[in-house]
Parts: sequence; C-alpha cells; structure tokens
Amino acid sequence: MSTAWVAEVVVMPKVGVNDPQGEAILGGLHDLGYRSVNRVRAGKLFRLEFSAENEAAARTVVTELSDKLLANPVIEEFAIESLVAQMEQVR
Amino acid sequence: MSTAWVAEVVVMPKVGVNDPQGEAILGGLHDLGYRSVNRVRAGKLFRLEFSAENEAAARTVVTELSDKLLANPVIEEFAIESLVAQMEQVR
Repeated sequence: MSTAWVAEVVVMPKVGVNDPQGEAILGGLHDLGYRSVNRVRAGKLFRLEFSAENEAAARTVVTELSDKLLANPVIEEFAIESLVAQMEQVR
Repeated sequence: MSTAWVAEVVVMPKVGVNDPQGEAILGGLHDLGYRSVNRVRAGKLFRLEFSAENEAAARTVVTELSDKLLANPVIEEFAIESLVAQMEQVR
C-alpha cells in the first residue's frame, strides 16, 4: 500500500543562460507601457501526481525524473517547490 | 522614490482544459519506467523584477500584466505565488 503525493517542480534557466522567452515578454511589457518592469525570467512549473511508499521515496523519484526528463541540466536548474501527501490511500 | 520588487507568477491550464504538454510528459515518464506517476500538469512560472511605490501598487501592476500578457484567460489561470520587496531603493 502506498500513499498518493502531489509535487510541484519549478524549472528555470540557469543564472547566466540566455532566456529569449523572458526577454520577449519584457519587450512586450514595455510595448504595453509597463516601463517599471526591468527583468523577466521565464520558467516552467510541473504539478505531478504519483504514488510512493513514504516521503523519502517520493522525494527521490521526483528528483530523479526532474533531472532525467523535466529539466535540461545543461541550461536549466530545477527545484522541488512542494511535496504533499494526499489523504486518500491508493493501492 | 520607489521600491524594487520581485514577483513570481504561476500560469496553469484551467481545470478541464486539455494539457497536451503535460500528457506528453506523462507518456515520457511511463516510457522511462515511472509508472507510479498518474498525472502531470504543465504550467509556466515567471519571475519579474520591477519598481512600485508600495505593495498595493506592486500587486495591482502584477495582476494587470499577468492578465494582459502572461496568461491567456480563456484557457489559463494565474496566481501571484510571491511578491517580495527588495532591500535596495531604486529611483
């Protein structure tokens, strides 16, 4: 029997890596008149629902799959923003 | 004189709206052997640096520009995940 978990993983471009999407958004904001904005970084957020026996196993699997599939470790860094056990039990 | 702020805005597909990116990632995870994952939702996270006179003005501008540019209100919803004043003052 294992527990249901919800994890949120944030993937952002590494410091120093170009972020063309963020720059395009910054340009768009300036065009719209939002001159007070001086920097935009664009990243991704993934919400995962999965089952694992305990919190250590849950954290291990989220770290693994973030590193393998969600983030490109050459240009991006990821962080597990939250990891929460759901109340119901799943088989 | 105004204060420097950093805001994080999360944009997610609305409940009930198809999320092809999340489904593709779920398929990829299953292919990699992560069968314990049963749902993935893929969203975006934007980190904005800007100036505003006070917290109310900062919140107003972030809400406005999220609604106008960062999110497509037909299929996406946004949330201001954090809004933090920086220590230094900017002119």
